[in-house]
Amino acid sequence: MELIAPKGTRDFLPEKQIPKQEIIKKMKKIFELYGYSPIETPVFERFDVLSSKYAGGEEILKETFSFEDQGKRKLGLKYDLTVPLARVIALNPALRMPFKRYQIERVFRDGPTTTSRYREFYQCDVDAIGIKTMTADAEIIKIAEQVFKELKLDAEIRLNNRKLLNSLMEEIGIEKDKILGVLLAIDKLDKQPKKEIEKELKGKGIEAGKIKKIFELIELKGSNYEILEKLEKKVSSEEGKEGIKELKEILELSKEYKTSNLCITPSLVRGLAYYTGPIFEILLKKGEVRSSVGGGGRYDKMIGLIAGKKEFPAVGISFGLERILDELESKGLKKNFSVTQIFVIPINNGKKAIDFVEKIRLLKINAEIDLLNRSISKNLDFASKQGIPFVIVLGEKEFKAKEFSLKNMDSGKEIKIKFSDLEKLKTVLK
Amino acid sequence: MELIAPKGTRDFLPEKQIPKQEIIKKMKKIFELYGYSPIETPVFERFDVLSSKYAGGEEILKETFSFEDQGKRKLGLKYDLTVPLARVIALNPALRMPFKRYQIERVFRDGPTTTSRYREFYQCDVDAIGIKTMTADAEIIKIAEQVFKELKLDAEIRLNNRKLLNSLMEEIGIEKDKILGVLLAIDKLDKQPKKEIEKELKGKGIEAGKIKKIFELIELKGSNYEILEKLEKKVSSEEGKEGIKELKEILELSKEYKTSNLCITPSLVRGLAYYTGPIFEILLKKGEVRSSVGGGGRYDKMIGLIAGKKEFPAVGISFGLERILDELESKGLKKNFSVTQIFVIPINNGKKAIDFVEKIRLLKINAEIDLLNRSISKNLDFASKQGIPFVIVLGEKEFKAKEFSLKNMDSGKEIKIKFSDLEKLKTVLK
Repeated sequence: MELIAPKGTRDFLPEKQIPKQEIIKKMKKIFELYGYSPIETPVFERFDVLSSKYAGGEEILKETFSFEDQGKRKLGLKYDLTVPLARVIALNPALRMPFKRYQIERVFRDGPTTTSRYREFYQCDVDAIGIKTMTADAEIIKIAEQVFKELKLDAEIRLNNRKLLNSLMEEIGIEKDKILGVLLAIDKLDKQPKKEIEKELKGKGIEAGKIKKIFELIELKGSNYEILEKLEKKVSSEEGKEGIKELKEILELSKEYKTSNLCITPSLVRGLAYYTGPIFEILLKKGEVRSSVGGGGRYDKMIGLIAGKKEFPAVGISFGLERILDELESKGLKKNFSVTQIFVIPINNGKKAIDFVEKIRLLKINAEIDLLNRSISKNLDFASKQGIPFVIVLGEKEFKAKEFSLKNMDSGKEIKIKFSDLEKLKTVLK
Repeated sequence: MELIAPKGTRDFLPEKQIPKQEIIKKMKKIFELYGYSPIETPVFERFDVLSSKYAGGEEILKETFSFEDQGKRKLGLKYDLTVPLARVIALNPALRMPFKRYQIERVFRDGPTTTSRYREFYQCDVDAIGIKTMTADAEIIKIAEQVFKELKLDAEIRLNNRKLLNSLMEEIGIEKDKILGVLLAIDKLDKQPKKEIEKELKGKGIEAGKIKKIFELIELKGSNYEILEKLEKKVSSEEGKEGIKELKEILELSKEYKTSNLCITPSLVRGLAYYTGPIFEILLKKGEVRSSVGGGGRYDKMIGLIAGKKEFPAVGISFGLERILDELESKGLKKNFSVTQIFVIPINNGKKAIDFVEKIRLLKINAEIDLLNRSISKNLDFASKQGIPFVIVLGEKEFKAKEFSLKNMDSGKEIKIKFSDLEKLKTVLK
């Protein structure tokens, strides 16, 4: 027996789990500020739900962990949070619209693993169901901005529109059935050199002249309104005009929201087939991680198709927790191996010190007391290696003087505090 | 395709997920106050880890969901959080002891389902590894008391000791190899009539005289110290004396902790085979749910046996989240379908109202704005049905007067607040 974690998974020990929980807490705070409520769905779903033809598609199904329960029902670990959301909506016709929910859970894909690709990873999804107008899209975009502001990461939100993209492709003369393929090739522009994309487009039977036109369009530069004006002149179809109108509405609403980092990006496509309108992607402006840390868009048809009932217009965004964690770690945050804020070292008076530590806990300060009756130096070494910021040594001297020293483990400085003045800890620890 | 959740699982919609998150938040707060840090392990484990002979045992293995990954590795959904903890300790020899961790995650058992037995459920585990002395047990027991105090549930913590139980059984004349079977029969005393237990013991070949003696011992009444004194007279083995000593130490330490609801309960056994010393169980004193809401004990050998290295003394407790949730719900808490605290209804001025709502959010108040451009009455109806406590209607009148009315949806009362005095919302909402 090898005592290892399964391939493509990892354990989160305190030094990773503490910052991860911190990120989740901050995201939840922002989601709830905007009135999005939490839901949770099972880790596994019935396989026929996951394999519905309107769900994640062939490719993702190949990477789905599947198994049977005792009753020979075929099940699968969920590969995303959108399909379970669609099922929940189908199953609960009494749900009041708009249904604004968030969901922060692990999903599973049995695919190839690399240093940044895991078989178990988190998705943090916020979706608004039941709203046709751009009011929902602008709100979701604002939430994305707020999340990264809260995390103190410098993010840019790219914005485009599938209706507009479709229409532009038609204007260039790309046949309808080839449009999605062309768009998916363009989508790789961030990861592959332009030449490779051109080659792929040629391979799809697109003529050189058309390829040139495609790149002219998606490489348009200028302010958001300048780009939109240029593109507006190119489209003649109803669909294209609607796409432009949607983007303008989002820009107008975003002014009210004071969303400041929105960039109309004509080359933005987003891989998934089910988007029907605005699409967005979040990129960090600097830092080691160059890749996207989240993205989403409007998918007005998918839920209705899965639920098999009326239409459910929907828009949502998903944040990549692991990538955000990597980015924050690359900024060199101090490693904490413990949540403890104060470590109390009693000298031969473990029992007497319990009452003291309990009083610290009443102040809502995370406090730990040595439970191993170790020497002072061993305890100091332990507290230091654990990254615990403060230590109190508590001997007879301290109990007699009714005063103790609070030692800052970083600076080595000590401050004297009277037992009767314990509240002072709260200000010092702030 | 049936759009249902898999058998034995359920979706947590906001009205259930909001209180569940609240319970988790309170537990985490207490665990961290005592210096326990969070860890997280994968949803699935390698099957050979789960089926280690020192792990959960035959019965639990029959209820383990198992499957293979693309590389034909056999995996299983985890059935508890203790086996993964043992694996983490084996895999990370550099972990500093004591290792005090908590873990709040879902576990999976493919067993029979009832209204209160699910195939996916939460375990909330707190464990201290590396501490031989009762200082850890007393701390863990205090944590249990604090958790239920924080949840405002009236709990009793029952305490016993496996060493003492073994020794008492020996004194009565039960053969060594029959002791565990006898104990597991006694364990059912809370759920089955005494007569059935007697029958089961007879079936195991225990003579009537011995059965009588067993019941005399486990039905002992009195204060904690009275019971211990009576039992102390019955035991002569080293093991039995040690058991008594451990319980006395826990009682002494608990005085310092001011743990007030601890009851020595000679009939307490706890089902699991791996306990080696003190065992505890938490029961709610009143309320609809009569069953245990948590339990644990000391298991000094199990981790070392799985890790295959040196000994790792350990003590821990596990709380049953779903049962706690059921209990809180049976108390008739108000149902919230949303986290929103204030719902803003703009009249024909959706854009202008955005800035207003954003200012409320700056006060850290969860605020939602109508995104569907509905009528006032439809919006009021929506807010009321969602259980949102406050509503603000915002028309031209309000913008001119720079004043609005905050409507309390429960009482129907309204208070006027000036735009310039928005901070006042914080005090009203407290």
